[in-house]
Amino acid sequence: MKLGDGIESAIHCVTLLAGAGQSAVLPAKALAEFHGVSPSYLLKHLKQLVAAGILESIPGPSGGYRLAREADRISLLDIVLAVEGSAPAFRCQEIRQRGPSPLESSVYVRPCGINKAMLKAEQAYRGILSETRISDLLRDYAETSDQRIIDRGCAFVEQNIRN
Amino acid sequence: MKLGDGIESAIHCVTLLAGAGQSAVLPAKALAEFHGVSPSYLLKHLKQLVAAGILESIPGPSGGYRLAREADRISLLDIVLAVEGSAPAFRCQEIRQRGPSPLESSVYVRPCGINKAMLKAEQAYRGILSETRISDLLRDYAETSDQRIIDRGCAFVEQNIRN
Repeated sequence: MKLGDGIESAIHCVTLLAGAGQSAVLPAKALAEFHGVSPSYLLKHLKQLVAAGILESIPGPSGGYRLAREADRISLLDIVLAVEGSAPAFRCQEIRQRGPSPLESSVYVRPCGINKAMLKAEQAYRGILSETRISDLLRDYAETSDQRIIDRGCAFVEQNIRN
Repeated sequence: MKLGDGIESAIHCVTLLAGAGQSAVLPAKALAEFHGVSPSYLLKHLKQLVAAGILESIPGPSGGYRLAREADRISLLDIVLAVEGSAPAFRCQEIRQRGPSPLESSVYVRPCGINKAMLKAEQAYRGILSETRISDLLRDYAETSDQRIIDRGCAFVEQNIRN
């Protein structure tokens, strides 16, 4: 099981914007620079976050991205679904219906137990992700990070913010 | 997030073997035929299940595969890890350490909160998978499946079993 590499930068960008403030705008170039990823690579994920209503895109030469809603109304699940799509990790192909001496498909009224069990596990995964808000991550970051990490982030935001 | 397609056939094969009986041997060709997958495609996953101690490979012209341990000692997590590997779905690249004005890495003593939160969700996922045993799936299958589905499976096993 694997999440795409874009998830990490997407979550970090949303968290950095939340730390910068509700109305703070940061350009895509700065978001890419701070996380050491290519702007074109990041742009795809920023657009997905805009499409999902997590970020807002501010056009123009002094534009960029800002939160579309408050940090306590953005969960990790929102970001994962925005970037990865909503399809479950286990994609049942109904292979139970294949093979010799096939039965008519109406016999398979109940869902496959294997699919059911895999989806139950994914529900638990999504449940924890949906309980975790960007505001929780920010609080944890502020309480547990070395002060030099926080200072570096604040200095970068100050240099690049567009209000 | 996506699991490889091999997971579905791997779980179905282990469940079919468990349904056939603890010492029942089925050839790879029959396992592939029953699930409508190519034998060469399935062979890779059968080998992974053998390497993980879930199945045993019986060599020779009348050989095949059988359970290496009892069905109540094989969990869905065992199979998922055997086929997908044990790396977490979220693979932290420590992008928090990238970018301008880098700090020495010793500042980052505590794990990244984003990584921590993503791993917590995956622990919940793995927890449910590890609680679900192949014996549970078999019981559910026997109790809830249409009798024609069960009869078809039994007839196929009877025709292909090698004890």
